[in-house]
Amino acid sequence: MAITSFDVARLAGVSQPTVSRALRDSRGVSTATRRKVREAARALGYVPIHSGRALSTKSAGRVGIVSAELSNPFYPALIAPLHDGLARAGYRTILITDKGDEPLELEPLIDGSLDGVIVTTSERASSLPGELLRRGVPCVLVNRSADHVEVDRCVPDNAGGARTVAQFLLDLGHRRIAVIGGPEATSTGFERVLAFREHLARNRFPVPDEWVRQVPFSADAGRESMLDILRYEPTAIFCANDALALGALNAAHASGVRVPQHITVVGWDDIPMSAWDQFSLTTVSSSLDSMAFSAVELLLRRIADPSAPATELVVPPRLILRGTHGRVAQSS
Amino acid sequence: MAITSFDVARLAGVSQPTVSRALRDSRGVSTATRRKVREAARALGYVPIHSGRALSTKSAGRVGIVSAELSNPFYPALIAPLHDGLARAGYRTILITDKGDEPLELEPLIDGSLDGVIVTTSERASSLPGELLRRGVPCVLVNRSADHVEVDRCVPDNAGGARTVAQFLLDLGHRRIAVIGGPEATSTGFERVLAFREHLARNRFPVPDEWVRQVPFSADAGRESMLDILRYEPTAIFCANDALALGALNAAHASGVRVPQHITVVGWDDIPMSAWDQFSLTTVSSSLDSMAFSAVELLLRRIADPSAPATELVVPPRLILRGTHGRVAQSS
Repeated sequence: MAITSFDVARLAGVSQPTVSRALRDSRGVSTATRRKVREAARALGYVPIHSGRALSTKSAGRVGIVSAELSNPFYPALIAPLHDGLARAGYRTILITDKGDEPLELEPLIDGSLDGVIVTTSERASSLPGELLRRGVPCVLVNRSADHVEVDRCVPDNAGGARTVAQFLLDLGHRRIAVIGGPEATSTGFERVLAFREHLARNRFPVPDEWVRQVPFSADAGRESMLDILRYEPTAIFCANDALALGALNAAHASGVRVPQHITVVGWDDIPMSAWDQFSLTTVSSSLDSMAFSAVELLLRRIADPSAPATELVVPPRLILRGTHGRVAQSS
Repeated sequence: MAITSFDVARLAGVSQPTVSRALRDSRGVSTATRRKVREAARALGYVPIHSGRALSTKSAGRVGIVSAELSNPFYPALIAPLHDGLARAGYRTILITDKGDEPLELEPLIDGSLDGVIVTTSERASSLPGELLRRGVPCVLVNRSADHVEVDRCVPDNAGGARTVAQFLLDLGHRRIAVIGGPEATSTGFERVLAFREHLARNRFPVPDEWVRQVPFSADAGRESMLDILRYEPTAIFCANDALALGALNAAHASGVRVPQHITVVGWDDIPMSAWDQFSLTTVSSSLDSMAFSAVELLLRRIADPSAPATELVVPPRLILRGTHGRVAQSS
C-alpha cells in the first residue's frame, strides 16, 4: 500500500498540512519540525506526489531553468541563487540544458509539467521566449535579453557598466586599449562591446577593429584571443566576462606578460573564482544574487498575474577593484 | 492548425520518417539533410511532440541526470560528455539538481517522463538508486558509488589511484604528508583517503589523524584546510579532488608558500582548469569522457534489458604529471 502524507504525519507527530508545508519548504515551519518531517518521510520512503497538488491548486510546483553553458562558471553561480530563491517560494527546479547547436526541444517546457521557465542563455534573436508566451507559459529572462519580444526580464546595465570601465581605463592613462568581447548574438556580448567602443570613440581614443575580438564566452577563447591580441601591445584589455578575462590572464602568465605591471585586465561578472589569490581580477559585478532573486520575483508575479504588462528590471553594475589594473606604465 | 512533421517534411523536401530521424539526432541522416530539416522545423515553429513517440515506442527519448554540486567544476565537466553521449544515442537530457540538504523529490524521476536516470552525486548510503530500481526506472551511477544496492555503475579505481599517488610521493622522498579528503559519506572521499593512508601506513609512514581533513569537495574548503594544515609543515599534500587542490594552491599562494619548491600538491579529476598556466596541477585523471560514455552505454544496455545482472565498470586512473610536485627539499 502506498505511503501517504498522513503516515508521515503520524510518524513525525505533526498534522498532515504541516507535512505538506514542511516538504514544500514553506515559511512558517520551524527548522526542527522540518527536520522531523523529513526524517519521517525518508524512513517511510514517502514520495511527495506533486501532480496531486497540481490537480488541486493548478500548480506543478516546478520551474524550469534553461541554460546552455554550464562549463562557463558564470552559469552554475547564477543557477545556485535561482534554485535557492525558487525553493524559498516552494518551487523545485528542473534544469534544461540547451547545447545551442540544435533547436531546443520545446515539449518538456510546454507539456504542463512546469509552472514557469527562467531562461538564462537566450540569444538576441531567440524565438524561445515568444514561443513560451504564445503557449501561455510564464517566462522570465535573466542576464541575457532577447529582442522584439515583450517578456519579463532582469538584466545588468550593460551599456552603463561598459562606459564605467572605459572611463576607468582612460582615468588610469590607458590609450592603447583592446577588447575581448562575447558573441554579437548575445545581448551581453553585443551591448558591452558597443557601449565601450562608443565611449572611447567619443573621448577621442577609438578602438581599431583589429583590436576587438568577439568570441565565445569561454576561458579557452579568452586565452587564444589574448595571445593573438598581444602583438598590438595594448596596455589594457576589457573582457566582456570573467571566463574570457581568466583565459586572458592565463595567456599573459604563459607569455611572461605581467599583470598589472605590463597590462591591465578588467572582466565582468565577479564569479567566485575571480576573487581567488592567483587571479585577483578587477571586474564588474552585476550583483548576481540580487539579479537571480529579482528574476524569481518577476516569475512569481507573472504566475500570479499572467496578463500584467512585461517588466524590465535593470541591475546597476559595480566596479570591483582588485589586483589586475594599474596606471599605464610611464615608458609607454 | 497544429504544424506536424508532415508539414516539415514537405518544406524540407524529405520524407516524414526522415524528419523524425533528423530531429532525433539518429545516425544515418546526413548533416546537410539534418540542417535542412531543422531549418524547416524552425521556420514553421514545429514542436516535436515526444509523448507521441512515447506512446508508439514506449520511449520518452529523455534521460535525467541527477547532480548536486554544479559549483564544483567537476560536474559541468562530467555532464557535458554525458549530454553528448546521450544525444548521440538519440536522447535529450534533463538535469535534476539536488541540493543535498533536503530529500530529492522522486516524482519527476519516476513519473514516466524519463527513460532512465544517471546519478552523479549519490552518497554511499543514498536510497535513491534503490528507490529507482524498485520502481523499474533504469538507473546508472557514475563516479560516485552507493553501498548495498545492485545497480549499474561506472566508477574510478579510487583505491588504486590513491595508492599510486601515495607511492609517487614516497618515491619523491616525502615523509611529512597531509591529506585534504572529501566527505566520508561519498565513495570518492572515503575510498581515496582510506587507501592512501593504508598504503603509507604499510610503508611505515602513517599519516597522523590531525593531518587529515575530510571536508566538502570545494575550493573554499580546500583553501581553509590548507591554511590550517600548513602549521604542521607537511612537504606534500594529497587532495581528493581538484577543487580542493586548487583551493590548497590558493592558500599556498596567499601564504607565500611556494609550490612545488616548498610543498607538493596532487589533486584528482583533471578538470580543464587544472591545466591552466597559473595552476599546472599534477593530478589523477579518471578519464572523464570515457567514464561518461561508458555510463551512457550501461544505461542503454539497461534500458534494452531491464533484467540483466548489474554491471560495475572500474576505470583505471592515470597520474598526470604537471608542475606542482617535486622531490622533497634537502633541508627538511
